Amino acid sequence: MQAQVLSLTAYSGCGGIMTRLGIVGYGNLGKAVERIVCGMEDISLVGVFTRRDPLTLRSPYGTVFYNQKDLKDFAGQIDVLALCTGSSKDLVDLALDLARNFNTIDTFDNHEVIGDYLIALDKVTKTTGRLSFVGAGWDPGLFSMMRALFEVVLPDGATNTFWGEGVSQGHGEAVRKIKGVKKAVQYTIPKAESVALAIDGATLTAQDRHRRECFVVVDDGADLEYVENQIKTMPNYFDGYDTVVNFIDDDEFDLKHTKMNHGGVVMRSGVVGGQRQILSFDLKLDSNPDFTASVVVAYVKCLSRLYQRGERGARTILDVSINDLIGGDNRPSRKYL
Amino acid sequence: MQAQVLSLTAYSGCGGIMTRLGIVGYGNLGKAVERIVCGMEDISLVGVFTRRDPLTLRSPYGTVFYNQKDLKDFAGQIDVLALCTGSSKDLVDLALDLARNFNTIDTFDNHEVIGDYLIALDKVTKTTGRLSFVGAGWDPGLFSMMRALFEVVLPDGATNTFWGEGVSQGHGEAVRKIKGVKKAVQYTIPKAESVALAIDGATLTAQDRHRRECFVVVDDGADLEYVENQIKTMPNYFDGYDTVVNFIDDDEFDLKHTKMNHGGVVMRSGVVGGQRQILSFDLKLDSNPDFTASVVVAYVKCLSRLYQRGERGARTILDVSINDLIGGDNRPSRKYL
Repeated sequence: MQAQVLSLTAYSGCGGIMTRLGIVGYGNLGKAVERIVCGMEDISLVGVFTRRDPLTLRSPYGTVFYNQKDLKDFAGQIDVLALCTGSSKDLVDLALDLARNFNTIDTFDNHEVIGDYLIALDKVTKTTGRLSFVGAGWDPGLFSMMRALFEVVLPDGATNTFWGEGVSQGHGEAVRKIKGVKKAVQYTIPKAESVALAIDGATLTAQDRHRRECFVVVDDGADLEYVENQIKTMPNYFDGYDTVVNFIDDDEFDLKHTKMNHGGVVMRSGVVGGQRQILSFDLKLDSNPDFTASVVVAYVKCLSRLYQRGERGARTILDVSINDLIGGDNRPSRKYL
Repeated sequence: MQAQVLSLTAYSGCGGIMTRLGIVGYGNLGKAVERIVCGMEDISLVGVFTRRDPLTLRSPYGTVFYNQKDLKDFAGQIDVLALCTGSSKDLVDLALDLARNFNTIDTFDNHEVIGDYLIALDKVTKTTGRLSFVGAGWDPGLFSMMRALFEVVLPDGATNTFWGEGVSQGHGEAVRKIKGVKKAVQYTIPKAESVALAIDGATLTAQDRHRRECFVVVDDGADLEYVENQIKTMPNYFDGYDTVVNFIDDDEFDLKHTKMNHGGVVMRSGVVGGQRQILSFDLKLDSNPDFTASVVVAYVKCLSRLYQRGERGARTILDVSINDLIGGDNRPSRKYL
């Protein structure tokens, strides 16, 4: 297998760089990245690395699966590792460990911790001579970029981020851990009245901006009152939010609540010259993991170029110009002007 | 005056860079830039340079006016010149000439010509050791950035830019040049049915996307049929567009049609993983010149920092990372993540 992997480096499409990609984790995001890069001329997928038994996994694209603990054997054979394992403490430890031998990219989305993670990873990668992108999805990611851009071009104003209407995987998982819950999905929904206040320039809390609606299937004989109370009082996730819990049966759940749509809006409303000016960036995604993977793949290619140019350290997508992202030679921006 | 100007370089706010700014042109945009920078701690306004007689001009902010032809005497005393003179051929010649002695920024908005202008200015500035930003407004500018970003993160899709609903200064000027026209304003209005098609991923022409509505005051005895026909058949501006011409009187014009609101949407609708994904960037501006000036001022400060860092040549805002735009020390992006 290794000989075959190495030979892929010979193929380089259209004067660009051939990136040898490894995917770590085979959940929704990992599968979406795989789906996108299969058939791309400038990315060769070396394999998917997983904690599960590789022999139990099959890919519709013929991807080879490896045990995650064998990753160290692939040093020098992978240009970028896409970490698609979720944003737990595990991801931080994993990234810091892998940064010894690999350039990494992730969509780490714990907003409280990401700053410290970035600093720690920057320190490691500068020592090991690697380049990493942190939080290269849509929030953190594109939304972060918009929050910063909007504030600097409209300094006197207020920024509000609305998530949804869409499915929050993290909230669904949290509900599924409650005793008696069989299936659960959670929709984050912007409050219309808060969107109106944001347009007028108000600064709102996350609780002000959103309500939460859960659709839950319980085990036979489960205590509905207990489940509902556990959800509504859950710290950080639901406490303080307007939350509605709907109990439904298996069939309705499978029919109506298995999509992974999401999206949101970053809005800044402010004043220049005594006049109201409103900027907003809006995402409407029928599939959150597929779009997130598409962002990751764009920045995988960018990472390869920047690494070849000699850049080292940990970055967010705010550190990269649009021209560096779109790549190509000599003023690629012209067609967009 | 010069001694006073020079002394301003001593004041530098909060560890940042004090930028000595000159404004060329005193129309809507020049006045808006003046209004924003007056009172800013990190920008000192050296003066406004104009082709009009400086003695006939007064500023509510006590700004000093100079004749534009005396600009060469200010070499070494101005860090950035904001060219606020409109996007005619004159601006290109002016910028290429001024680039011998100054760093410049403009909001040049002739989309057909801007690429050549950028290349020409890049050549000059690299010879003279200057740094210039071209098209640093919202279109070209923020909209260019979005068109490029959206395409690279969602490669399989269609981008459409809608302008308006808002006042197009250029179209109003063109109408005012017609014989018999006393006052005129032109509103560019996105067609609702085209917005719907764009959401579905259609690629549309500018004529498909917009309709145009004019409000015109004519001189006594003017030929209305002639005026309306001249407007509707005007090449590039109106020909091929659905155009409505309304003739109104002075009072109605002054009451209802003197605002400078504008805005628009860059939308990309595409598919990843077989699923529809829609990105859009939306501007709603009660005052087009004030917001444009706010973008210019943000990039003036960025230009100063990049120049001090040694960057030379002509740039668009696609060449600059968000972190370089927001400035500051050591990972300024963290609060936006």
